[in-house]
Amino acid sequence: MRQYPKPLNKLINELSKLPGIGGKTAQRLAFHILSLPENEVQGLANAISYAKQNLRYCSVCGNLTDSDPCVICSDTGRDAKIICVVETPQDVLAMERMQEFNGLYHVLHGVISPAEGIGPNDINLKSLITRLSGESETEEVIVATNPNIEGEATAMYISRLLKPAGIKVTRIAHGIPVGGDLEYIDEVTLLKAMEGRHEI
Amino acid sequence: MRQYPKPLNKLINELSKLPGIGGKTAQRLAFHILSLPENEVQGLANAISYAKQNLRYCSVCGNLTDSDPCVICSDTGRDAKIICVVETPQDVLAMERMQEFNGLYHVLHGVISPAEGIGPNDINLKSLITRLSGESETEEVIVATNPNIEGEATAMYISRLLKPAGIKVTRIAHGIPVGGDLEYIDEVTLLKAMEGRHEI
Repeated sequence: MRQYPKPLNKLINELSKLPGIGGKTAQRLAFHILSLPENEVQGLANAISYAKQNLRYCSVCGNLTDSDPCVICSDTGRDAKIICVVETPQDVLAMERMQEFNGLYHVLHGVISPAEGIGPNDINLKSLITRLSGESETEEVIVATNPNIEGEATAMYISRLLKPAGIKVTRIAHGIPVGGDLEYIDEVTLLKAMEGRHEI
Repeated sequence: MRQYPKPLNKLINELSKLPGIGGKTAQRLAFHILSLPENEVQGLANAISYAKQNLRYCSVCGNLTDSDPCVICSDTGRDAKIICVVETPQDVLAMERMQEFNGLYHVLHGVISPAEGIGPNDINLKSLITRLSGESETEEVIVATNPNIEGEATAMYISRLLKPAGIKVTRIAHGIPVGGDLEYIDEVTLLKAMEGRHEI
């Protein structure tokens, strides 16, 4: 059986390493890329190198940024009294889309997961402690990790760690998503929604 | 609303131009790429540039190749008396996987489609004529375009073009795919299968 020419094989091989891109899709993408004009192909290749070379994690909050500290950390208009702890830079974006939260962030880049051997020292948690011991301004830490076992465990850990220092630690509410249908909501979420009920 | 850092925006934008990659997938891929070590990211970027710079279409058959003429065209062990006409370089690979065909290929890079304004001059057809008039060796041209309206029209066009020159033009058979189920086969395919029946 004849193989693809080497450069094509290499390209397909590299593309198929990406998440959710199988062999067939990688092949389709490769042929598409080869059908593009030279400058567009270079545009794609350059965007990949450029992004990797020019993005780093903010030394303060751990968010993805092209300047250090990031624009959120260096924005004096934001409320430094509240820090929202999230798992990933994508979560920061999700929070920012809300256009409501005006505090700062701290990105953990993961969650504590004993099952996967990920302990408190394997995520970006130490820098949160350093950050909090350094600036006395912080009054509240909102833990916005995902509502699953690892996310809850991480939230509990952070809470126990910070409470002795007199910092208020809160957890985002779990419940029925807006637009959700009670009938199709799982029991655990429904239970959380019942627990979290409030007077109207 | 805060935007992504520019280099990230650019990367997401470039990735989302790829076929089948929407905004969300592009975002997921971008974050994955950024999480990779520097050398792997460079590997991907280089594979893209390298493939584009080192692959071209064979000047004889139009197949994708890193040498010109391509390895199939320059293989003296292959039967130059038969040329199989296909739509894309991917089709050449499909034929080669069969490990049965030992002739040469001609890649059209498209099909005649009046609906989309694609005429005989817009596909790699002229070079087939040149090729056939040059070498008198060719005895048969197998048209293996896809079994749809455009593919059939293209096959008819090629047949009318070459028959006067005394070249036998054949079309690959349509019918029920091996392993297919009669019950679920569309009527047109079934009709083709009936028409193409042969004594056993």
